[in-house]
Amino acid sequence: MIVVLKKDATQEQLDHIVASIREWGLGTELSGSKTQRMVDVIGDEDLARSKPIEAFPGVDRVLQVQKPYKRASLEFKPERTRITIPAIGQSGREIVIGGKEIIVSAGPCSVEGRKMLIDIGSAIRASGAAILRGGAFKPRSSPYSFQGLGMEGIRYLREVREKLGMPIVTEVMDTRDVDLIDEFSDIIQIGARNMQNFSLLKAVGFAKKPVLLKRGLASTIEELLMSAEYIMNRGNEQIILCERGIRTFERYTRNTLDLSAVAVLKNETHLPVLVDPSHATGRRDLIAPMSRAAVAAGADALMVEVHNDPKTALSDGPQALLPKDFDDLMQDLGKVATAIGRTLGKQ
Amino acid sequence: MIVVLKKDATQEQLDHIVASIREWGLGTELSGSKTQRMVDVIGDEDLARSKPIEAFPGVDRVLQVQKPYKRASLEFKPERTRITIPAIGQSGREIVIGGKEIIVSAGPCSVEGRKMLIDIGSAIRASGAAILRGGAFKPRSSPYSFQGLGMEGIRYLREVREKLGMPIVTEVMDTRDVDLIDEFSDIIQIGARNMQNFSLLKAVGFAKKPVLLKRGLASTIEELLMSAEYIMNRGNEQIILCERGIRTFERYTRNTLDLSAVAVLKNETHLPVLVDPSHATGRRDLIAPMSRAAVAAGADALMVEVHNDPKTALSDGPQALLPKDFDDLMQDLGKVATAIGRTLGKQ
Amino acid sequence: MIVVLKKDATQEQLDHIVASIREWGLGTELSGSKTQRMVDVIGDEDLARSKPIEAFPGVDRVLQVQKPYKRASLEFKPERTRITIPAIGQSGREIVIGGKEIIVSAGPCSVEGRKMLIDIGSAIRASGAAILRGGAFKPRSSPYSFQGLGMEGIRYLREVREKLGMPIVTEVMDTRDVDLIDEFSDIIQIGARNMQNFSLLKAVGFAKKPVLLKRGLASTIEELLMSAEYIMNRGNEQIILCERGIRTFERYTRNTLDLSAVAVLKNETHLPVLVDPSHATGRRDLIAPMSRAAVAAGADALMVEVHNDPKTALSDGPQALLPKDFDDLMQDLGKVATAIGRTLGKQ
Amino acid sequence: MIVVLKKDATQEQLDHIVASIREWGLGTELSGSKTQRMVDVIGDEDLARSKPIEAFPGVDRVLQVQKPYKRASLEFKPERTRITIPAIGQSGREIVIGGKEIIVSAGPCSVEGRKMLIDIGSAIRASGAAILRGGAFKPRSSPYSFQGLGMEGIRYLREVREKLGMPIVTEVMDTRDVDLIDEFSDIIQIGARNMQNFSLLKAVGFAKKPVLLKRGLASTIEELLMSAEYIMNRGNEQIILCERGIRTFERYTRNTLDLSAVAVLKNETHLPVLVDPSHATGRRDLIAPMSRAAVAAGADALMVEVHNDPKTALSDGPQALLPKDFDDLMQDLGKVATAIGRTLGKQ
Repeated sequence: MIVVLKKDATQEQLDHIVASIREWGLGTELSGSKTQRMVDVIGDEDLARSKPIEAFPGVDRVLQVQKPYKRASLEFKPERTRITIPAIGQSGREIVIGGKEIIVSAGPCSVEGRKMLIDIGSAIRASGAAILRGGAFKPRSSPYSFQGLGMEGIRYLREVREKLGMPIVTEVMDTRDVDLIDEFSDIIQIGARNMQNFSLLKAVGFAKKPVLLKRGLASTIEELLMSAEYIMNRGNEQIILCERGIRTFERYTRNTLDLSAVAVLKNETHLPVLVDPSHATGRRDLIAPMSRAAVAAGADALMVEVHNDPKTALSDGPQALLPKDFDDLMQDLGKVATAIGRTLGKQ
Repeated sequence: MIVVLKKDATQEQLDHIVASIREWGLGTELSGSKTQRMVDVIGDEDLARSKPIEAFPGVDRVLQVQKPYKRASLEFKPERTRITIPAIGQSGREIVIGGKEIIVSAGPCSVEGRKMLIDIGSAIRASGAAILRGGAFKPRSSPYSFQGLGMEGIRYLREVREKLGMPIVTEVMDTRDVDLIDEFSDIIQIGARNMQNFSLLKAVGFAKKPVLLKRGLASTIEELLMSAEYIMNRGNEQIILCERGIRTFERYTRNTLDLSAVAVLKNETHLPVLVDPSHATGRRDLIAPMSRAAVAAGADALMVEVHNDPKTALSDGPQALLPKDFDDLMQDLGKVATAIGRTLGKQ
Repeated sequence: MIVVLKKDATQEQLDHIVASIREWGLGTELSGSKTQRMVDVIGDEDLARSKPIEAFPGVDRVLQVQKPYKRASLEFKPERTRITIPAIGQSGREIVIGGKEIIVSAGPCSVEGRKMLIDIGSAIRASGAAILRGGAFKPRSSPYSFQGLGMEGIRYLREVREKLGMPIVTEVMDTRDVDLIDEFSDIIQIGARNMQNFSLLKAVGFAKKPVLLKRGLASTIEELLMSAEYIMNRGNEQIILCERGIRTFERYTRNTLDLSAVAVLKNETHLPVLVDPSHATGRRDLIAPMSRAAVAAGADALMVEVHNDPKTALSDGPQALLPKDFDDLMQDLGKVATAIGRTLGKQ
Repeated sequence: MIVVLKKDATQEQLDHIVASIREWGLGTELSGSKTQRMVDVIGDEDLARSKPIEAFPGVDRVLQVQKPYKRASLEFKPERTRITIPAIGQSGREIVIGGKEIIVSAGPCSVEGRKMLIDIGSAIRASGAAILRGGAFKPRSSPYSFQGLGMEGIRYLREVREKLGMPIVTEVMDTRDVDLIDEFSDIIQIGARNMQNFSLLKAVGFAKKPVLLKRGLASTIEELLMSAEYIMNRGNEQIILCERGIRTFERYTRNTLDLSAVAVLKNETHLPVLVDPSHATGRRDLIAPMSRAAVAAGADALMVEVHNDPKTALSDGPQALLPKDFDDLMQDLGKVATAIGRTLGKQ
């Protein structure tokens, strides 16, 4: 951390700044030139960051040198994290996210009933999807929209999981439900709107299952990593980061899928990265090109909405693929994966 | 709701669309011209909105005509909501938010200790602040930052509340804490990062105390009203909406304070509007001009950070005013309030 | 400027960095600690900024300490710039922008004809507007929209100028038209979409008349000041900066009026600041509250669209005020101006 | 276009709306229901769009049904536009942009001298680049930055063009330079900051050479197509649209590359689409993954900055690839192109 002094800062102000920093157990070193004096803060930048140095008299600006996340950083842990989902039953296969294989999760936005889930699950498994997704508790911006089947949805997910030997991922929205989702789901999803629900992050930090952490609609990459740090700080280091589009002025797509974030994250962290093109674009016709692009950009996994009857879907019908289109997509993704030296993992 | 058909939509597709809409209990009427056919949907647009009409074959686009919020709308309830905070003890005075008086809440970002809270509380009360603010549970983007004193902070707030006869507002972050905050605080604050934490919204919807609902960093005005609708839908209609800055590309201020939102909200809803210039700008030197502007734009209330020693503050020191500067600000605000035909309410 | 080295930067890389910086005529000083080495660059940061130091091997990041604008900065010129528009004819009065008086410019978005301009001009002058605005060359996002009357519009503006003794402001869009607008208009307007049209900035830098420089829809405050610097660098130091809304995700208003920018600019630069609430909000019902807020925030001037028949206006009808509403607004603004110790300047 | 009436609109207001619309030569049809009355406007929506219907008494909102661009739309011209750049000299080869081949343009951000241009040009040609890029007139946010070699730069570009038989693309910034660039360059580039410089768009609309039109930093896809429409409306239909990143709140990358825009544009327009990953990300380490992703998303062309000594580059050094890295990139791109059924075009 570098404390840039105001041009007219007095010696007394400088002395006070230095004395305060040393009181916190940190070192200081004067630097800069006569016209631009600075104080380098030496030691744990996290500690310095928790202090309001910018409010000290004589301080113009504070420049941060170190990154604010630690456990999530590639510098801290240079080996890539591989997240292993154990095989389900006899027909299942162990899945590894973050390895050479690209893993695809698919399924309906919401679990709407038992039969639709069995049908969609069977179809996507046949096409090569490795994980079944489906929301039981649904975050909806309107209180008048379908809010999900809740516990009934969880039961259907479990039934299809056993039947098909396919791990499931579903969202948790409330700290009071973390134990339940931790017990019943193979991966615990934190939705975009809860990325900075710090109570929920702390709660899943004590969970046993891997966490799929979605980037907030207006969250920076750094904030996404800080939220991962919250979870890791509690002990759960099995985190999959998810890029799902950010909010911009562009109105043609629901959100703007930030694929640079995938490449940035691969440089900054050891955690695997998943891309959700369905929520990002909100348009069925963009799922295939954006899925191909995500794989080409280096994503370790994808999550794609599939519905056997999008026009009756209770949520996000317009962005769901039909099973047949999903099957075509998987063929295409296999080719792109091969082109960049990876393979498409299958259940 | 208007369903715009694709140019090449077949009669069969049109029939299917019309039949489906009628099946949901809604009416339809064909409109448009030969080159641009449309179907008007007649009846409850909320019901229509919950259906994936955009996913139907032959549909180009769906245009929404009605507003998605209802109880929060000025159309639904044309009288302005006034939120009454009862007098505390003998020295206190009843406060009304949403009337002719402009109400100012002030205090430290975080409750850091007993003495600082008494000192700051006494100072702001003397300057005319009506409500004491202070965070006990703090949402912080880093797990390594000060997370608030928790229950100890609540105790200090209660003590100062009784001592000064001044109502308090403090944040709730976890559904498990709603009962506690509802019991001890006069106003329950929902922070910007939790504006779409729907579990928390539902929980405070059952609370007895008024809710101060902060706009999310990337939330539209419509979404803010939808979140208010969540709370009202559970029964709690005492909501104060808070504009506290949105996230944009501008880097000079922490966020961009959207004062147009104040004027828009006054046109759209009967709920009172509060402005928080401290978190919006993140800069002490902008608090005074932005507070004056907020009052001139029509805000019913303000929330300003005040600290007696900003340079030792455990959170957001750089944006806190000193008690003396707050006192000057209150003088200025009184004049602006008078200029627009209102008055500055005082404790 | 501070060059932060990578953790694994070699001594050879460091030597190369230092040698290069010195070769450019700048000084260097090593700073930081053992774990975080840095090089302070001493001397003209502009020079250093023009060099690709970030591309040097061993460099992690470059932190800028000085501001990139100079002539526009309050530090460089501590006295406020006052822009004087000479009196027109015998009935006119000298106008000063940037003094104690708040100056209001008003008129139609586009000059649509002779009579409408005379009528609107007479009405706004009677209400106290000091300057007549009106577009002759109009930037329109569609080639199929009304593009302005061009030279014919300029003639009508001149005629009304002489008749009413009222200075005019109109936009220049093409370097080839700068001489013409410089001759005929009292103030030369650069539109938001041309804020970084550097050829145009250079051209008006040689003009004799003051320039009204509008902030780009996605331009930072720093970039606005850099664009002013372009003009000042060519010799024209008579610049009025204009905040007119920035592009955000919010859809209720056309743009988001950034009133913090007004307060920031008053701290950063000696140049006067004007606010355009009409283009910012795009909604007639928001003009009055946003104009009041702009004055309260410290704006030196306002520019308001007025039309005597908004429903036949050839551009931006929905945001224009009627002369009667403008008259009411001027009354209100006078009161807010008084409340903050200023007055409303009148023609 | 659909005119939604206010709930309390009077019959007189409705009659006035209908009469006015008919006066403009457009048809009307009443639609909607008793509680929600609407007027469908029949005929040329462009005409209706130029009228301020929203300002009419009794009007609540106006919903647009048709797209505001025409010549640029795929609906208007269903065959894909292929832009042919004739072979230069005997060593050159005809290039087609918009066909099966993916075309790569490469070179330095700025032309800095003769030798560097020859060296870089030779290197990228050997790696398979089809077009040489290089700026002679440079838009720079600071007047103190290197502004390009101007005419001298054009001469070097011409010399290398002849020598290598390689077409060139360079930027025009001023209407007064359009004839010159039209004569000397094979493709005329309009920079992002000039995307809505309508004078410049009209001027290149009369040029003979194809135009590379870069998306503005805060421009929507629709606005990009409207700007193309400006050029096409003057007669020049040879336009290559360029996605080069939009401005968002994210700070890790310089801009956010919006690859969804590529897929959207391929659905909306017959014009070819080029991606510029260098300016979008501003970071050398992201060029390769983003280039691969752009090809996978369906881009017809790429433009990549290459410098033989990025650390002495006079502009944008940190984002330029070394020739060797560019060569590796071309290998990778060839594989991704094959995976999606295309090939990499070479000079």
